[in-house]
Amino acid sequence: MTIGIAVIGAGIMGADHARIVAEDLPGASLRVICDMDAARARGLADRLGAADAVTDPEAAIVRADIDAVIVASPDPTHAPLTLACIRMGKPVLCEKPLSPSPDECVAVMRAEAAAGRRLVQVGFMRRFDAAYGEMRRALTEGRLGRALMMHNLHRNVATPAADFTGAMAITNSAPHEFDIARHVLGTEITGITACQPRRSDALVAPVVMVLDTADGQVVTVEVNNNAAYGYDVRAELVGETASLSLATPARTRLDGGLASSTAYDADWRGRFAAAYAAQDRAFLHFAATGDFPEGGASAWDGYAAAQVAATGVRALAEGGRMPVALIAKPEFYA
Amino acid sequence: MTIGIAVIGAGIMGADHARIVAEDLPGASLRVICDMDAARARGLADRLGAADAVTDPEAAIVRADIDAVIVASPDPTHAPLTLACIRMGKPVLCEKPLSPSPDECVAVMRAEAAAGRRLVQVGFMRRFDAAYGEMRRALTEGRLGRALMMHNLHRNVATPAADFTGAMAITNSAPHEFDIARHVLGTEITGITACQPRRSDALVAPVVMVLDTADGQVVTVEVNNNAAYGYDVRAELVGETASLSLATPARTRLDGGLASSTAYDADWRGRFAAAYAAQDRAFLHFAATGDFPEGGASAWDGYAAAQVAATGVRALAEGGRMPVALIAKPEFYA
Amino acid sequence: MTIGIAVIGAGIMGADHARIVAEDLPGASLRVICDMDAARARGLADRLGAADAVTDPEAAIVRADIDAVIVASPDPTHAPLTLACIRMGKPVLCEKPLSPSPDECVAVMRAEAAAGRRLVQVGFMRRFDAAYGEMRRALTEGRLGRALMMHNLHRNVATPAADFTGAMAITNSAPHEFDIARHVLGTEITGITACQPRRSDALVAPVVMVLDTADGQVVTVEVNNNAAYGYDVRAELVGETASLSLATPARTRLDGGLASSTAYDADWRGRFAAAYAAQDRAFLHFAATGDFPEGGASAWDGYAAAQVAATGVRALAEGGRMPVALIAKPEFYA
Amino acid sequence: MTIGIAVIGAGIMGADHARIVAEDLPGASLRVICDMDAARARGLADRLGAADAVTDPEAAIVRADIDAVIVASPDPTHAPLTLACIRMGKPVLCEKPLSPSPDECVAVMRAEAAAGRRLVQVGFMRRFDAAYGEMRRALTEGRLGRALMMHNLHRNVATPAADFTGAMAITNSAPHEFDIARHVLGTEITGITACQPRRSDALVAPVVMVLDTADGQVVTVEVNNNAAYGYDVRAELVGETASLSLATPARTRLDGGLASSTAYDADWRGRFAAAYAAQDRAFLHFAATGDFPEGGASAWDGYAAAQVAATGVRALAEGGRMPVALIAKPEFYA
Repeated sequence: MTIGIAVIGAGIMGADHARIVAEDLPGASLRVICDMDAARARGLADRLGAADAVTDPEAAIVRADIDAVIVASPDPTHAPLTLACIRMGKPVLCEKPLSPSPDECVAVMRAEAAAGRRLVQVGFMRRFDAAYGEMRRALTEGRLGRALMMHNLHRNVATPAADFTGAMAITNSAPHEFDIARHVLGTEITGITACQPRRSDALVAPVVMVLDTADGQVVTVEVNNNAAYGYDVRAELVGETASLSLATPARTRLDGGLASSTAYDADWRGRFAAAYAAQDRAFLHFAATGDFPEGGASAWDGYAAAQVAATGVRALAEGGRMPVALIAKPEFYA
Repeated sequence: MTIGIAVIGAGIMGADHARIVAEDLPGASLRVICDMDAARARGLADRLGAADAVTDPEAAIVRADIDAVIVASPDPTHAPLTLACIRMGKPVLCEKPLSPSPDECVAVMRAEAAAGRRLVQVGFMRRFDAAYGEMRRALTEGRLGRALMMHNLHRNVATPAADFTGAMAITNSAPHEFDIARHVLGTEITGITACQPRRSDALVAPVVMVLDTADGQVVTVEVNNNAAYGYDVRAELVGETASLSLATPARTRLDGGLASSTAYDADWRGRFAAAYAAQDRAFLHFAATGDFPEGGASAWDGYAAAQVAATGVRALAEGGRMPVALIAKPEFYA
Repeated sequence: MTIGIAVIGAGIMGADHARIVAEDLPGASLRVICDMDAARARGLADRLGAADAVTDPEAAIVRADIDAVIVASPDPTHAPLTLACIRMGKPVLCEKPLSPSPDECVAVMRAEAAAGRRLVQVGFMRRFDAAYGEMRRALTEGRLGRALMMHNLHRNVATPAADFTGAMAITNSAPHEFDIARHVLGTEITGITACQPRRSDALVAPVVMVLDTADGQVVTVEVNNNAAYGYDVRAELVGETASLSLATPARTRLDGGLASSTAYDADWRGRFAAAYAAQDRAFLHFAATGDFPEGGASAWDGYAAAQVAATGVRALAEGGRMPVALIAKPEFYA
Repeated sequence: MTIGIAVIGAGIMGADHARIVAEDLPGASLRVICDMDAARARGLADRLGAADAVTDPEAAIVRADIDAVIVASPDPTHAPLTLACIRMGKPVLCEKPLSPSPDECVAVMRAEAAAGRRLVQVGFMRRFDAAYGEMRRALTEGRLGRALMMHNLHRNVATPAADFTGAMAITNSAPHEFDIARHVLGTEITGITACQPRRSDALVAPVVMVLDTADGQVVTVEVNNNAAYGYDVRAELVGETASLSLATPARTRLDGGLASSTAYDADWRGRFAAAYAAQDRAFLHFAATGDFPEGGASAWDGYAAAQVAATGVRALAEGGRMPVALIAKPEFYA
């Protein structure tokens, strides 16, 4: 059986998903590329051999030859398009965030529950990264004792825009950290504090957060979208008896000019290329079988990350710890 | 267009190729699994959804629905089956060695040249490994100055058999090192010395080789099939101005029990999984277009590695440097 | 000229200082070991060739053949003995903390200022560690841009006692972190929050702190006195353009048992042996010349660390950020 | 008791030894600096507080206030001055090589044996390096199984002179490698082959050697005096069950400009500073007690390294393996 797929959004992320579907996933057929920019949609479709390029996402979703949808359009459209997929009973992989608004996430959960079966996967691709997988497994297998702390760093070379704010760092980048901490620790985040260095007048400042969890762990998060030196994601999981860290990825080491060095990528694509491919492969299997991927991110996960982010924005503005108030977890996601 | 593929040999390597074809290569169709052991062929075919399982490789090769062949059967069958593919005009990816006998390699080259087009790719998958790729690129781009030396280590946990000899290490494992040195340095090996420690009465001893090249470089090679501690492949390319080494691969680091440690795999599959997939993808493209893969290993490369290995076996037995006598490179491979 | 030295306290730290004085410092003469336990004092004195072993610290300080004093007795005695040295006009190297009480530190500063010359060096030996020195120099030389953040981890194998509390971690271990952050960043700490994971019922929990500085930096500190896996001190200084981290110290790497590993020490002595020696050498020079060591820790530094610690204990108990209220820095320490 | 010391040779090495004696060794008194260049001797003596600066080494050796001598003058003077010390019955630490001529080394051994007590320590300081110490201990303690191979690299930034030859690399730099291999493996070198890349017309080429030992191990050595990128010494000891490598020394790691890097020194002094200090301390103890230092290099060790080097020079010129013909080890050194 071949699964017909529409990719909505032909920007960087959409183009990446489309390439994975077209080139890495036997059993998938990339049928439609949708983008508000018709030329961009057409260009991508031609490059990857997709049959059609369209500008109306709803029309793409309802097509009979489309079995599943990947949403990689601008953030505010994520929830509406996900809802449209649910209405059509079509599995959807929605790029993070499911919505910047926790309320919209709740609406998605309600619609999915009403549909009576799992249809929504959220694009927290780190859950499919082999290194985080090793970390989670080490904890599950008891090799670290119980988890006490987690330290997470997320650094980009430069902010997308000069007026990028700390609040944007929390809603845009930090959800990856919130989700992976929840996933690795297997618990919910219950409180957050946030602060920023005041040192860097000209630059966009990083954000430092301290989270606490329902299981009593302390999680630190640094999001530094302006780190200058390279794309760098680090994590350390500190247990009672041992500690596990992500290794700095490097294929080669160069000895030259009185230094021994390994290279950083300039952006996230190399670091998480295999994770994206594995995630999309899991989504294809989900679309084909209806079985939600083991370890994949659900609408609930999308909601939880959004709620932590929304609370974090307030904590940054007001100072002090803010409790994260989640709704009761619907039975549907148990 | 879908390329119908037969995999001959359902052992570890054959099963790996078959899985890649079935699961990772859109545009490929795994149609036949062939193995002398009918049950093993059938089991693999069923597991991967191949239509047929057979025991006669020649019959598999001639089938009309087979467009390309992957040969992963026992070493002595490599050349005869490759010749059978050439006779049928079908592209073949032959696992290394092309043949243990340089003369048989010459016969394959003659047949391929007589066929008038490239049909034979040899499975030196390291050429598709990203780390070796970075090494070669660093040299090509002039970041190291001219190459002076290369140091290569190849270590397995344990030999396949207790009576594994130094000569077997040279013919079985070392060709990977001979080929990648030729590939990275872009030159031929012109001489070889080989020796072994005499220390290890009970165990199979490693082999240390020193190669010289047509461009005047010195290449050291250690093949240690009994290294006990893990699967480990290292290489350093020493240039006039800088030196580039493969980094030790690690996804995570464990701090526990007064040690900070990263893990070794027990065998080669994890380390070179992506290289095998990329190689087989390049072969699929070769089969579909007739364009021999950029950087892929040809029958000439298979011959050169075999000739170095054969000379190395004599050098180990007799002591001292042996010149490697290659035939003139056929124009066909220029 | 030979400087006669008395070491007060023959415990682990005192014995270490005494050994450095006796064996590593030409120009120093270890004359007196003082300890409440006469046998312990005598044993150490005999082992190192010190002339006398005594139990009364004040009597040791006043001796005519004692030019300088190293105080390594129990914490509550630090300030009184330092004051006794000041009264005698004798240079004193006082182990940290100068006092657990900020008020006592103020008393020491007043006495020293009244004496009219620098007499007090506090044993924050990390200031003489080469790695932290490289970090500070990188910042001073502008290789990192302006400092934005610092991340610090301090981990011991196990707490000295089962009833070790978070407050003890803040007053006992964290002052090293407070001082080195102040020293590297060249500024004062202005606020602190502190929290602990609630996960570990049976064990002594780590403490996570977030500090802010007068220059607007954010500093995170983890003190984990029960980390189990080894003695580990880490620090990263994050600047606007680059980031500098302490490297994990290792002399050798062992490949064995499917792992590649480096060793952790079980305690701090190996990691900071050279720093202690350099610090004591600087103190000897101070005692000989009256010139306070470049980069050494003064009574003011001892006070500042004590005040941050005292505030941190309150922040841990009460939650939320506590401002660190320092007295105005006396001109004497400008 | 204070040991009066003369340092002969005020070049880089002599100045280093003199500084260690003056500043790091309680119980030693730096009394005389001797150099053919009177001004250089005087300058160093003044800087370090030595009483006298002279130009006649024999006169320095015979002085009544000189108890022990450190010889760091030009290589051809090493053996004659060592013999002069033996004649006076004064312990001597002679910088390597003991002599470039094996015959002269034999003469030193005969004189020492005739004196009836150990007087000669050779300056193979690596034996006092903590990393090599860990390597040797791992072997002795059985953590690696029996030793099979050792791989050694020695790289300098640039040769001292443009006409530095491969033979000079073997006699000047490689003896450190010969000695440490003998020391770590606890055996003698029995054969050597040597070759050089022919690639580097303009530059001084590195030398690659393969040694075999009386215990049947294979040892590879690369000496690259023109490595350009930094001072780098590596070693790996490969045992039957595990392998131990020197770690690349680094105090800090810099993340900047899309790279993560650690620094190389430009020369050997930082890497082996602690080893030199420990060696000279061991020599002081030897001079004071007459007990030859555990693990120190004797005249026999100086001879063995010289003989391997002399054989290596012939092996490089003539090609092929040359047996290393040592005289029978005198009972005196058993």
